Amino acid sequence: MPPFVHRLRVRYVECDMQGHVFNAHYFTWFDVANTELWRAAVGSYAKINEAGIDVVVSEAGARYFTGAHFDEDVEIEVTLEPLTTSSMTSRYAVKREGELLVEGFTRHVCVKHGVRSKEPWPDWVREAVAPYVQQFKA
Amino acid sequence: MPPFVHRLRVRYVECDMQGHVFNAHYFTWFDVANTELWRAAVGSYAKINEAGIDVVVSEAGARYFTGAHFDEDVEIEVTLEPLTTSSMTSRYAVKREGELLVEGFTRHVCVKHGVRSKEPWPDWVREAVAPYVQQFKA
Amino acid sequence: MPPFVHRLRVRYVECDMQGHVFNAHYFTWFDVANTELWRAAVGSYAKINEAGIDVVVSEAGARYFTGAHFDEDVEIEVTLEPLTTSSMTSRYAVKREGELLVEGFTRHVCVKHGVRSKEPWPDWVREAVAPYVQQFKA
Amino acid sequence: MPPFVHRLRVRYVECDMQGHVFNAHYFTWFDVANTELWRAAVGSYAKINEAGIDVVVSEAGARYFTGAHFDEDVEIEVTLEPLTTSSMTSRYAVKREGELLVEGFTRHVCVKHGVRSKEPWPDWVREAVAPYVQQFKA
Repeated sequence: MPPFVHRLRVRYVECDMQGHVFNAHYFTWFDVANTELWRAAVGSYAKINEAGIDVVVSEAGARYFTGAHFDEDVEIEVTLEPLTTSSMTSRYAVKREGELLVEGFTRHVCVKHGVRSKEPWPDWVREAVAPYVQQFKA
Repeated sequence: MPPFVHRLRVRYVECDMQGHVFNAHYFTWFDVANTELWRAAVGSYAKINEAGIDVVVSEAGARYFTGAHFDEDVEIEVTLEPLTTSSMTSRYAVKREGELLVEGFTRHVCVKHGVRSKEPWPDWVREAVAPYVQQFKA
Repeated sequence: MPPFVHRLRVRYVECDMQGHVFNAHYFTWFDVANTELWRAAVGSYAKINEAGIDVVVSEAGARYFTGAHFDEDVEIEVTLEPLTTSSMTSRYAVKREGELLVEGFTRHVCVKHGVRSKEPWPDWVREAVAPYVQQFKA
Repeated sequence: MPPFVHRLRVRYVECDMQGHVFNAHYFTWFDVANTELWRAAVGSYAKINEAGIDVVVSEAGARYFTGAHFDEDVEIEVTLEPLTTSSMTSRYAVKREGELLVEGFTRHVCVKHGVRSKEPWPDWVREAVAPYVQQFKA
């Protein structure tokens, strides 16, 4: 299955004096793209809280090859690694017309809503995101 | 030598609905703290451009242990790894009253000003930042 | 003619601890919506700089009636007031399913590119934006 | 009495491709400066919620004369207009070495915590902020 893709237009506010998107903002884009994957997979984010769980970010990283510029249309590909008991790693590739600009990841942990204690992912989350989990070949 | 420390107060705008600082904003803090280290070591950032060079971020990462909250005073410790020919890795520890909240790093590459081609660090940069380079023991 | 409309989805990063979009971010949305109107009217923003001009913001304001929430789809209506020699006032209405959440304005001034000295709007700009200028009845 | 002053250093992330602070970010600065005035006058913001009230922004505006640049130290003067039953208008002047860059205001309304229904300001708030209220002469 091809990766999930979210497209967005670079905002003026996101560009710095070097003329491209400021490094921290790619992590905001990762969050936006991941939210869209969740919408496609699970439905509204509110459903998660209603189920008594929440997700917090435990780790994130990015490698920057070249920058996106103001007004450009970029696409963010998102794939999931196989889930562990309580964590989910999303991998992102930010591209402009097929060229890789930035790649990165975030790791989310499932916690009790309102608390930070780990919870195992509910089965309905596992099933909902399954189509987006990348199967790596041996 | 103790690490370089920059203190800042958490802004309301930086906190999300979970009540703590949004994950991407820590990378902005890393940038702020690194700028302050450069000011202490090298002087104004403008000097870098005047010397015909610039720095771009090639990689960044963070691990989140617990969140900073609105209005809290946090300190960001910055240490540098030994420089390579053209890159500089800064390591950050965000703390609140001594407790480690988030740790991370950024890797900057020295480039020609206005271009993205790598340049070796000038000697005056190497000398200026030397006091902030962490010496790891064997 | 109906007003120009730009739709966007509220980002998690834009919401504060009160659960709705932080007040300053609506001004970023105004900028995004205005950029889209310019794209529809004039084409890429780069054309402006190529013509030797630039635009700077001289004034902005907003009135907040109720807040947009995370993940909601909002629409931003933009209309222009009749241009003066060098300034352009854009009026915005941020709506959710027809309900007015926030209204505001920005005033841009045409300046020489790279300088802040006022320039009269070129005729091609006046003609391009004419369809978006609101005609107020007596 | 001289106005309350909060100083801050311009962050790289706040500057756009025109080389100065993006217009929306001044409203974030207004919020930061106002928070500091509240700290000086009332104490921690948490006290407000503990008293069962909250504040929401109902209106904001700014006029931009010239821009602040990266790494500059600016000072934000804050004065309050006399309070009405439920609203408080803060006026800001952003200066660099005495030169006025941007001026603006925000209007906050006192509401019940967790709801948006108006509440009169408690007397302890009125008394606490009294020293910061500008007395306009006839």
